[in-house]
Amino acid sequence: MNVIRYPQKEEWDELLKRPVMNVDTLRETVCRVLDDVKTGGDRAVMAYEKQFDHVELECLAVTEEEMDEAERLVSPELKDALRLAHENIGKFHASQRFETTKVEVRPGVTCWQKAVPIERVGLYIPGGTAPLFSTVLMLATPAKIAGCREIVLCTPPGRDGKVHPAILCAARVAGVNRIFKAGGVQAIGAMAYGTESVPKVYKIFGPGNQYVMAAKQQVSLHDVAIDMPAGPSEVAVLADAGSNPVFVAADLLSQAEHGVDSQVLLVTTDEALVGKVQDEVERQLAALPRKEIAEQALAHSKLVVVRDMDEAMELTNRYAPEHLIIETADYLQAAERVVNAGSVFLGSYTPESAGDYASGTNHTLPTNGYATAYSGVNLDSYHRKITFQELTPQGIRDIGPAVELMAAGEHLDAHRNAMTVRLESIKTEMK
Amino acid sequence: MNVIRYPQKEEWDELLKRPVMNVDTLRETVCRVLDDVKTGGDRAVMAYEKQFDHVELECLAVTEEEMDEAERLVSPELKDALRLAHENIGKFHASQRFETTKVEVRPGVTCWQKAVPIERVGLYIPGGTAPLFSTVLMLATPAKIAGCREIVLCTPPGRDGKVHPAILCAARVAGVNRIFKAGGVQAIGAMAYGTESVPKVYKIFGPGNQYVMAAKQQVSLHDVAIDMPAGPSEVAVLADAGSNPVFVAADLLSQAEHGVDSQVLLVTTDEALVGKVQDEVERQLAALPRKEIAEQALAHSKLVVVRDMDEAMELTNRYAPEHLIIETADYLQAAERVVNAGSVFLGSYTPESAGDYASGTNHTLPTNGYATAYSGVNLDSYHRKITFQELTPQGIRDIGPAVELMAAGEHLDAHRNAMTVRLESIKTEMK
Repeated sequence: MNVIRYPQKEEWDELLKRPVMNVDTLRETVCRVLDDVKTGGDRAVMAYEKQFDHVELECLAVTEEEMDEAERLVSPELKDALRLAHENIGKFHASQRFETTKVEVRPGVTCWQKAVPIERVGLYIPGGTAPLFSTVLMLATPAKIAGCREIVLCTPPGRDGKVHPAILCAARVAGVNRIFKAGGVQAIGAMAYGTESVPKVYKIFGPGNQYVMAAKQQVSLHDVAIDMPAGPSEVAVLADAGSNPVFVAADLLSQAEHGVDSQVLLVTTDEALVGKVQDEVERQLAALPRKEIAEQALAHSKLVVVRDMDEAMELTNRYAPEHLIIETADYLQAAERVVNAGSVFLGSYTPESAGDYASGTNHTLPTNGYATAYSGVNLDSYHRKITFQELTPQGIRDIGPAVELMAAGEHLDAHRNAMTVRLESIKTEMK
Repeated sequence: MNVIRYPQKEEWDELLKRPVMNVDTLRETVCRVLDDVKTGGDRAVMAYEKQFDHVELECLAVTEEEMDEAERLVSPELKDALRLAHENIGKFHASQRFETTKVEVRPGVTCWQKAVPIERVGLYIPGGTAPLFSTVLMLATPAKIAGCREIVLCTPPGRDGKVHPAILCAARVAGVNRIFKAGGVQAIGAMAYGTESVPKVYKIFGPGNQYVMAAKQQVSLHDVAIDMPAGPSEVAVLADAGSNPVFVAADLLSQAEHGVDSQVLLVTTDEALVGKVQDEVERQLAALPRKEIAEQALAHSKLVVVRDMDEAMELTNRYAPEHLIIETADYLQAAERVVNAGSVFLGSYTPESAGDYASGTNHTLPTNGYATAYSGVNLDSYHRKITFQELTPQGIRDIGPAVELMAAGEHLDAHRNAMTVRLESIKTEMK
C-alpha cells in the first residue's frame, strides 16, 4: 500500500489515475464472434461454448428439471438468505416507482410522463470461480418490479454442462423467465440479435470480463441498449481519527479481493490512522483464501492523508468512486457533500458488503469515473419515460403563434403549417 | 407515398424496416480528428474549422459583445416566442424533479436515492441551413433546472465567423454558461477531452450529422456519456374515419421536410382516409419551400390500412416511432396502450410541431427504434441518482448473517469478514 501524505492539488490527477483499459484491440475478435452468432444462431453459440467453455451442449435453454434439481442442491440457509436479500432489494427498488403527474403547462396545454417498462431485457451473469447469484438478484428483481414482460438470463455452464444451482435458485426467486447456457461474447450476441432459442432483447445488463464489455459496447452502437460501460471495481474509504481501523482494514480488503486490478483508496484526515490500518490489513490478510489476489491489488492501492474534511470531500468527488464508505464522525454532513459516487455507505456499521448483498441498494454501479455521468442500475434502468401532450383549441390559440414564429425562424414551413391549419380551423369554428 | 392495405403480420417486419445506418466506415476519419483534438487542443479545433467550416478563427469562445449584438439582431417577436417556449419547457421539466425518500427497508437498514446534477454537460447544436435555436432551449433548459454547474455549448460558425444570433439569444434565455465556435467531430472531441478554452464535460447532448453521431459514439466508449444514439427523424400518425385529412397531411409533411431520409408512416383503420390524405399532401406540398426534400422523403413513406385499432396499436408499438400522433376519436384510450414511442401527441389539436417548439416536452427523442429501450431527454438525463445506505447495530444484526452466508457462497471471504468484524464488535459491546 502506498502512503501519500498531504499531496498538493496539482498532484491529484496523477494520484487518482486509473489504469487505462482499452478494449479496442479486442474489437476484431469480438466482431467476428458477434457476426457468427448473428448469422449462425444457436449453432454458432453452441460451437463457441465448445471452444471457450469446453462443453458440448445440445440445447441452450435450462430445463424445468434442472431448475428443480438446483432447488434441491442449495442449502435451506442460503435459500433463506437469498429470499431476505430479494425482499430488501425489492422493497427499495419498489419505492423508486414513478408516479405520473399531469402538468397543465398553460391553459389548454397539458403534458405528462409515463414510465413504461422495457418489454424485453437480457441479463448476463459471468461464470468463473465464484457463482455470482447476488448479481442475479440485483438485475432481475428491479426488472420484475418494473414490469418487463420478458426477462432473459444468459450465463456460461460449467464443464458438466450445468449452471451453478445457486444462480438458478436466485433466478427463480427473482422471477427470471428464461435462462440460457451461454457465456462471453456469444451470449451478448445471442441476446442482441436473437437466435432460434434466445429471444432478442432491447437492453442488456450485467458484468463480465473485457470481452463481454467489448461485446456489449459493440452491440450498443446499433442494436440494443446496455446498462453502462464498466471497469475494475473500486472503493474509496473516508476515515478520521475516530474510525475503527479493524473495520477500515476489512473494508479495504473486501474490495482488494475482487481482482488484481481492483482499485482501493483510503482518504483520511488522521495521519495516525494510516499505520493502524496497515497493521490491521496485514493481520486480516493472512487469514484470507484470496490472499494473493488481494495482495496484488493492495500493491497499487493508496492511503492518502489530507488536511481536513473539505479536502477529503473534494478529493473523493474528484475520484468519483463506484463505492464510497464514509466512516467519519460527521458522516451525515459528509453525505450531503457527495457529488460523484455510485453508492455511499454511511457510518461504522455499513460495510460495502451490506450493499453488495442485502441492504436493498443495487450493486451494479458505475466504475472508472463513470459516476460523474452515470447512475447505478435502479428501477429507471428498466423503464422508458414516454412523454404525452394534449392541446385543446385554447392551448393552440395560446402557443400556436409562437410555434409558427419559431418554425419560420428555423425555415421549417411545414412545421409552421401544421400549426397554421389548426389555428385557421379554430377561427372558422368560432365564426 | 406507398399505400399498403391490410398487411399480414408476417409482412410487418419488412414493412417497418428502417434504412440501415452504418457509421463504422467513418470510424477512421472520426478517430483521426478526435486524436488530433486530444493532442492539439484549440489549435487543432481551429485548423479543422478552417478545413470544414471554411472560417479562420482566432478564438473559439463567443464574446459578451457578440452576445449583445445577437440580442439586438433578433426580433422582439422571436425573443418573446423563445421566452414563452423556455417557460413551458421549464415548467414541464421542473415538474420532473425527484424528491428523496428514505426507506427503512428493515429496522436499522435505511436506504435512499438522491438526484445529483452532472457537474459539467456539453450541448452540440449543428449548423447548416437552419439555425436550430429550439434545440438550444430543449437541451439547456433542463440542464439549468437540474443544477448542472457548467453548461457548455458548441456550434459551428458561419463563413463570417459568427454564430446565428437566434442561437445565441436562445442560449442566453436558457442559461448556457459558455459558447464555443466549433462544429462536427472537432466540437465533440473538444468537449470530450477538453482544450485550452473548451472545458472537458462529463456528458454530451445534441443532434448532428453522421460524423457527429459517429464521434459521439466513439467518445462514449471511453471518455464521456452521451444522450442517446441517433438516426433520421420519424413520425407515425394514427388516424381513423373521423380524422381531419388536412391536419393529417400537414403532420406527415412536417416530418417529411426534415430531410430526404425522414421516416413518415400513416396507420389508419379507414381505407377512405388514405385518398383524402394523399390529395391534401399534394395540395399542401405545392406551397412548401422545402418541397423537394419533402418529396424525396414521401417517396419512401408508407400509408398503411389496418383492420382495427388493436392492430393499429400493435403495429405502431412494433415500429417504436420517435413521434407518435394519435388523431383518432378514442385517442386517450389509445394513449394508454402505447408501449414504444418517444413522445406522443394526442387529439386533433396537438401537432408534432407543438412539442417540437413550445408545449413543454422535450424534442430530443429516440429514433431508429431506440424508443424500445431509451427515453427522450428529460430532467433525469442531467442527474445521477446516487444511492445511500445506513445501518445501525440493529440493522447489522438483522441482515449480517445473510450477508455472511451469501459472501461465503460467492467465495468472497473478505466481504464476509467486513460483516463479521462488525457483528463481533456488537456482541462485545453487548456483554
